[in-house]
Amino acid sequence: MSPQAISGSITVPRGFEAAGVSCGIKNRKRDLALIYSEVPATAAAVYTANQFKAAPLWLTQRHLADGKAQAIVCNSGYANACTGERGKEDALRMAQLIAQELNIPPEMVVVASTGVIGRYLPIRRIEKGIPELASLLGDDDNGAAEAILTTDTVPKKVAVAVELANSTIRIGGIAKGSGMICPNMATMLAFLTTDARIGPELLQRLLRDSVDKSFNMITIDGDTSTNDMAVILANGLSGGAEITEGSGDCVSLAAALDFVTGELAKMIAKDGEGATKLVAISVEGAGSFPEAKQVAFAVANSALVKTALFGQDPNWGRIAAAVGTSGVEVKEEKLAISIGNLMVCNNGVGADFSMRKARQLLSAPEVEITINLNQGRQQARVYTCDLSYDYVKINAKYTT
Amino acid sequence: MSPQAISGSITVPRGFEAAGVSCGIKNRKRDLALIYSEVPATAAAVYTANQFKAAPLWLTQRHLADGKAQAIVCNSGYANACTGERGKEDALRMAQLIAQELNIPPEMVVVASTGVIGRYLPIRRIEKGIPELASLLGDDDNGAAEAILTTDTVPKKVAVAVELANSTIRIGGIAKGSGMICPNMATMLAFLTTDARIGPELLQRLLRDSVDKSFNMITIDGDTSTNDMAVILANGLSGGAEITEGSGDCVSLAAALDFVTGELAKMIAKDGEGATKLVAISVEGAGSFPEAKQVAFAVANSALVKTALFGQDPNWGRIAAAVGTSGVEVKEEKLAISIGNLMVCNNGVGADFSMRKARQLLSAPEVEITINLNQGRQQARVYTCDLSYDYVKINAKYTT
Repeated sequence: MSPQAISGSITVPRGFEAAGVSCGIKNRKRDLALIYSEVPATAAAVYTANQFKAAPLWLTQRHLADGKAQAIVCNSGYANACTGERGKEDALRMAQLIAQELNIPPEMVVVASTGVIGRYLPIRRIEKGIPELASLLGDDDNGAAEAILTTDTVPKKVAVAVELANSTIRIGGIAKGSGMICPNMATMLAFLTTDARIGPELLQRLLRDSVDKSFNMITIDGDTSTNDMAVILANGLSGGAEITEGSGDCVSLAAALDFVTGELAKMIAKDGEGATKLVAISVEGAGSFPEAKQVAFAVANSALVKTALFGQDPNWGRIAAAVGTSGVEVKEEKLAISIGNLMVCNNGVGADFSMRKARQLLSAPEVEITINLNQGRQQARVYTCDLSYDYVKINAKYTT
Repeated sequence: MSPQAISGSITVPRGFEAAGVSCGIKNRKRDLALIYSEVPATAAAVYTANQFKAAPLWLTQRHLADGKAQAIVCNSGYANACTGERGKEDALRMAQLIAQELNIPPEMVVVASTGVIGRYLPIRRIEKGIPELASLLGDDDNGAAEAILTTDTVPKKVAVAVELANSTIRIGGIAKGSGMICPNMATMLAFLTTDARIGPELLQRLLRDSVDKSFNMITIDGDTSTNDMAVILANGLSGGAEITEGSGDCVSLAAALDFVTGELAKMIAKDGEGATKLVAISVEGAGSFPEAKQVAFAVANSALVKTALFGQDPNWGRIAAAVGTSGVEVKEEKLAISIGNLMVCNNGVGADFSMRKARQLLSAPEVEITINLNQGRQQARVYTCDLSYDYVKINAKYTT
């Protein structure tokens, strides 16, 4: 039975609280978020593949070396990336102030930032905002879900409850996406909580596998941020037994985690900067999964394909051209391309299809493009969005 | 002495004629071009790296196997790519009809096409247009320069005269670019003529080297077309002696050829779809030329960098992030970035610069971004353009 979403997000699992405030980094918008577990939690994280990692990631990697954490603090507005030693000091200061308010060691605090790269944090404003932030901790997850956003238009939240053999656990998550979204830890930020009891190595492996199937399979614009991070805290307060490798409960937990990360990933793709539609690019008939994925990303990152999707234009030749430059060896005469269930290209040449039907399919809020290479049995699916005027508008104006 | 442009293009070298007509592929625009040499010419060409090569490229590769050609025919509007056997027959038909009109063997005809991928050529219209096209051959290069364009806003023409030891030679060229422009034979189409006398192997090497330094160093949108081709015809009518490998004349010819291809490449970048400015991305202090080039292309292809350039926004953090994901190992603390002569990032962190001055530099029609990795002595320069509303507009509407 596949997991079903319930309402709420990070505060659904037992023993978790959250809060979000406006501390003055951004103009009248929430910009500082906190997630807190009543008890120390097992923690795991995966980070951006960008070699210029932001200061908060540098600090968080150190704080999670023991697989334990109890709080996550995150600001939006500035990324605290490309900020040198001062950036590291600012990230540490955030951890120290949160630790002081919550009466926990600074090493139990995960720090994250998102926003403009290359500017120093307005650390005085953050310092001032932290006491209020801590005082607002509670069941309401909306403040935190909003405070981590930048150009996102909607908060991204999901929660599930999972029946294990002898207990029930819950998983919740919030995420932000929108721009600078591409493979290799694509989310920018995802914060996940669960009341399952689990050890740090197994939690790390489950998170890594789940991220590879979700956040690493979406792309908005082919750019990879300096600040991407997905973190999960597991506090064990469900009351159930510890989940061990290879058990039925482990399989259930993994499926539920995949559901949560998959839903958040789709929400990020759908809310890509300026996006008017969610687009699934499925590549079938490939010789291997990496080849299928490589072709899917070549198509999903093509500016020409994405503008055609915005224009509801069944210009499949652009898809074929992107396949042809993907770096994967493909036989032109075997290529087939469908929009939804409408075949537009077969055996490498145009199929006889209804232009009206194709435009109708492309005008839906969710579009599926299937590319069959007909040279193997492996497949991959990548989610992306279209490229619209608003992507240009948003990004031509972002810093100022 | 560096070569100087003179007026005109492909008909400047002795013994070349050209023409362009509207044969009805496009609505009231010129769409069929012809270039003709009075005598058989030495010919060389380089082709797209896209593995789905268009039918005319398949045919041209065969026709140039002997290093000889006498005419080039090119239509715009349809690319004759992803058109299977029928596409090959149509390309051959174009060669045969031109050969018949000009009284030369079909194997002496180079065929090129550009436009929408995946549609069959309206071959009857082309058949009808060819007699008029041949009858219009003459000194005027404007018809041919216009007839090869698609979404380009201006024809791209250049010519030089070069003093060799004992004679003068001329080189002329026309090109089209605009969209689907990226490394590995980026031009979409460039047709070059010269009256120099030269053998096919040396001409091929000079063309390949020159393309690597020019058309392969520009990018508009990261997409590589199925139809890219650069062709040069050398008919030897200058009256000078044959140019041989390693001679002073060979050095002069190579320099002149580099000038012609370099100018055409910059014209293509500047006239990229929706472009408001020409942007040079120079990477210095790299360990090797391929590494410098890789970093430069990562920056030049970043949608976030290109939208910031459109918005005249000195958001150097996006440039840093693109450098960090380029795949080249770079030390963050050594990175320096300048806009024109204004340093905006030094030692990996923001420099103290005037925002007003930065915006002023970014509002110019030509912008130079210099990225110093400070870890070697090699450099590369890539030309690109910004990403504007009009790129989206043009490409959301292209097929219909």
